[in-house]
Amino acid sequence: MKPPVRTYTKVQKQGSVGRSIDVTGFRDYHELRSAIACMFGLQGKLEHPGSSDWKLVYVDYENDVLLVGDDPWEEFINCVRCIRILSPSEVQQMSENGMHVLNDCIQAA
Amino acid sequence: MKPPVRTYTKVQKQGSVGRSIDVTGFRDYHELRSAIACMFGLQGKLEHPGSSDWKLVYVDYENDVLLVGDDPWEEFINCVRCIRILSPSEVQQMSENGMHVLNDCIQAA
Repeated sequence: MKPPVRTYTKVQKQGSVGRSIDVTGFRDYHELRSAIACMFGLQGKLEHPGSSDWKLVYVDYENDVLLVGDDPWEEFINCVRCIRILSPSEVQQMSENGMHVLNDCIQAA
Repeated sequence: MKPPVRTYTKVQKQGSVGRSIDVTGFRDYHELRSAIACMFGLQGKLEHPGSSDWKLVYVDYENDVLLVGDDPWEEFINCVRCIRILSPSEVQQMSENGMHVLNDCIQAA
């Protein structure tokens, strides 16, 4: 059975209710990061990658997990399938145990 | 065994008898929120997300838990599998212990 059409992108964080956003409604990565930080009460933690231990990652149409912010913005909005906020402990856990912390997101994509 | 067909959507709240609603019978999120608030005696607590600590969430066809109200209405009615009302203490508990407070709902979906 074909899954229902979904034009919005799911944003998930462990321990929080997921949100859905229209990535095409943002102009650039900065706007996107600020909006997501605000939605999840993480102001100051996601806006400047590298300045905190939180990571904003996405799963693309090939089910690969990538850091949000590297690709040209227009390409990103066409490739993204879901976004995930990783806490410092998840980042740590991932480096120890591999990518299985992201399995839910990958399977859902 | 194939489960029986269910066209209505279950709405659940801890400590209350569940209800079933036909989401396609509502015109928009506002109508849906008002009706659910009324059914569960929560008038004023669900109509304006962000103005109270109660959260109206849903489980979609991929078993993800998402906030009701983000997605375009037409997509929401095609994606929703069950709705759950989270009390302020359940929201708090979820942020401390993860999503297991929603397991019943997720398994049911």
